[in-house]
Amino acid sequence: MPVPKGSGACGMPSPSGVIAFLSDFGWRDPYAGIVRGVVESVGRGRVKVIDLTHDIPPFNVIAGAYVLYTSYRYFPGGTVFLAVVDPGVGTERKPITIETRRYFFVGPDNGILYPAAVEDGIVEVRVIENESVFLKPVSTSFHGRDVFAPTAVLLALGTPIEKVGRRLPLDDIARLELRDRCASEGEVRARVVYIDVFGNVALGLERECTSILCAERGRVEVESRSGIFMASCKPAFSFAEPGEMVLYNNSLGFPELAVNLGSAAEVLKTGIGDMLVLRRR
Amino acid sequence: MPVPKGSGACGMPSPSGVIAFLSDFGWRDPYAGIVRGVVESVGRGRVKVIDLTHDIPPFNVIAGAYVLYTSYRYFPGGTVFLAVVDPGVGTERKPITIETRRYFFVGPDNGILYPAAVEDGIVEVRVIENESVFLKPVSTSFHGRDVFAPTAVLLALGTPIEKVGRRLPLDDIARLELRDRCASEGEVRARVVYIDVFGNVALGLERECTSILCAERGRVEVESRSGIFMASCKPAFSFAEPGEMVLYNNSLGFPELAVNLGSAAEVLKTGIGDMLVLRRR
Amino acid sequence: MPVPKGSGACGMPSPSGVIAFLSDFGWRDPYAGIVRGVVESVGRGRVKVIDLTHDIPPFNVIAGAYVLYTSYRYFPGGTVFLAVVDPGVGTERKPITIETRRYFFVGPDNGILYPAAVEDGIVEVRVIENESVFLKPVSTSFHGRDVFAPTAVLLALGTPIEKVGRRLPLDDIARLELRDRCASEGEVRARVVYIDVFGNVALGLERECTSILCAERGRVEVESRSGIFMASCKPAFSFAEPGEMVLYNNSLGFPELAVNLGSAAEVLKTGIGDMLVLRRR
Repeated sequence: MPVPKGSGACGMPSPSGVIAFLSDFGWRDPYAGIVRGVVESVGRGRVKVIDLTHDIPPFNVIAGAYVLYTSYRYFPGGTVFLAVVDPGVGTERKPITIETRRYFFVGPDNGILYPAAVEDGIVEVRVIENESVFLKPVSTSFHGRDVFAPTAVLLALGTPIEKVGRRLPLDDIARLELRDRCASEGEVRARVVYIDVFGNVALGLERECTSILCAERGRVEVESRSGIFMASCKPAFSFAEPGEMVLYNNSLGFPELAVNLGSAAEVLKTGIGDMLVLRRR
Repeated sequence: MPVPKGSGACGMPSPSGVIAFLSDFGWRDPYAGIVRGVVESVGRGRVKVIDLTHDIPPFNVIAGAYVLYTSYRYFPGGTVFLAVVDPGVGTERKPITIETRRYFFVGPDNGILYPAAVEDGIVEVRVIENESVFLKPVSTSFHGRDVFAPTAVLLALGTPIEKVGRRLPLDDIARLELRDRCASEGEVRARVVYIDVFGNVALGLERECTSILCAERGRVEVESRSGIFMASCKPAFSFAEPGEMVLYNNSLGFPELAVNLGSAAEVLKTGIGDMLVLRRR
Repeated sequence: MPVPKGSGACGMPSPSGVIAFLSDFGWRDPYAGIVRGVVESVGRGRVKVIDLTHDIPPFNVIAGAYVLYTSYRYFPGGTVFLAVVDPGVGTERKPITIETRRYFFVGPDNGILYPAAVEDGIVEVRVIENESVFLKPVSTSFHGRDVFAPTAVLLALGTPIEKVGRRLPLDDIARLELRDRCASEGEVRARVVYIDVFGNVALGLERECTSILCAERGRVEVESRSGIFMASCKPAFSFAEPGEMVLYNNSLGFPELAVNLGSAAEVLKTGIGDMLVLRRR
């Protein structure tokens, strides 16, 4: 069964009454809970919140973009993605809404929405400026509660996107590319785009890079700030020997480095946003 | 758009079918999940649970009261707040329900419900003693599951509060004051009421204290057990230099100390419940 | 009020539209959120997900079985339990569904479902092999998303269990016994089946073992790899002196060792799956 593609009659996504909610608020403090309360209040009980995660590393837009990009396609058509990772809150960065072929995206204009929206197909972009829906007074640091959540509710209830604000040219929004192509078959520079709880290191590369790099001998050299390491090509990290570093495509479709029963991030001493160099060996 | 004020005809809050759930159970163990199951069972699928947080520091009633007080106003009228931070479970502390102008509050009588309930306007207080709704046998240590959750469901479904138990005089319930006034303009004693995941230190003071303390030179001296520190007055911590300590009103309406790119709680060596002294400088 | 027993007409559990979801995915990464998205998509908004917990220690089937066994009874009849702790994912272990007297259980055939299912009364077991409902391509490592979640939705919507796959003989599924009897009244070997966030150590013993062990003098000797310790028998850990080790039945019905204001797991240097020896003293 393919994931359903719920599209409305005129090619617009039909509202699902669902907000998928992603942030760097953490699960410990009440911020995510307060946003859920705002959705329940403003949506008068007709909008469902589905938590994607709230443990995006603080202010880490790349990790937020990766999580949104790898997750959005599993949600029903019409879902409104509320993505709040917002290092620029209170400054001049614009709050935006993107309508795509099947979905709506709401968040700051810092690139977090970009990879998912581009893949699904951007229809139009609007600045969020309809203050009549904001919670007042709008705080300087909690736009998730005061600006983004009530706007997401508006869209989840089927209000036309024109009500959100004026249209923005596509070229005006911040871009963020999660994947680089394998420019050279011998040597590839790869950005770290996510590190999961096991220390597995997801690489910002096309899926095909794994087979290109692994083609010859099934071994890859990995260079990080801490040194040069050998990784074997395996179908998954569970196929590796204890302590062995492996390269495979993860279940979210990205090339990934892992150390069986260990942490690749610790071995490589790397963090999200760092560059690694991979070479066929 | 203001947060809707859903009030019933006779001034009683109309039931929303919503329970906002707050505890110190943590997200790791199954306790919060079990309570959600009890609500689904007893409420026969007609009651929605919205998690506020479950990471109140264990048994920390002040932190629980702060989170409830700063969050409750964002939920729709009629919401039942189930607040389980209960160091006295199994002892003589009373389980209570408070009806306020717009909401219901359910939890132990240790002050956790008090600041939110008083602000919204207490209508009446009842002891929870209707054992016919309890899960049996009632355990000695998990009243969240056996006593509080089924009572919260009762109210969320619109059962009159008389069914919960007999009325208590207002003077009989435990009080907890989150905010002190700025008694002196020169020197202010402030209780630490919350520390968030970034180590920002929320102070139990009226909102106005920040401008009173900052009025003259925009600088404040902070004395803790670890020494005396200078803090600058800024609109938000993002306006500070790296390592600088700042004082501002946080997005939940409380004066707060933060260290940019650091932890104010670590610098001050302070915990929730401690007293700090602040002086104009 | 007893927990409702929602049974359908013909003795089959009637579908509740509820999935109770348990995993070792953690709350940090987006895996649990993606599964929620799949349920929302495949269930077309008609299935509710209730999170039990996602912090089962990675690959720890015993802890998963303990959490499921101690929690399932609080959910309404017809609930589908989706339990994904799956160290054998991608190998030959079978994905299965168990129908019991009141519930459905979906997960890998590694014993995680067994204690809960046996207690409720197994009606039949099916291999999950109806690929028409799977998300394609089925990944090697994320069967929670691709195989288990869509199957759980099928059952939550009331599809007959025959559609899941062919019937398995009861003797073919993996067994896991959480509780041993107190074979000897003088000395009891007990497996550690769970350690909670406070370091309290739940023991895989019948509830009655506590009173058997405590009968004579109210004291028990506990032998672990780190030495021999004395524990007092108390109604709950809050009755103990600071630093004292106590034995009592926890709120989930299992004998448990705790150290007041400390961690029994640290004192005993023990982990889930370890054996301890308890002796009357």
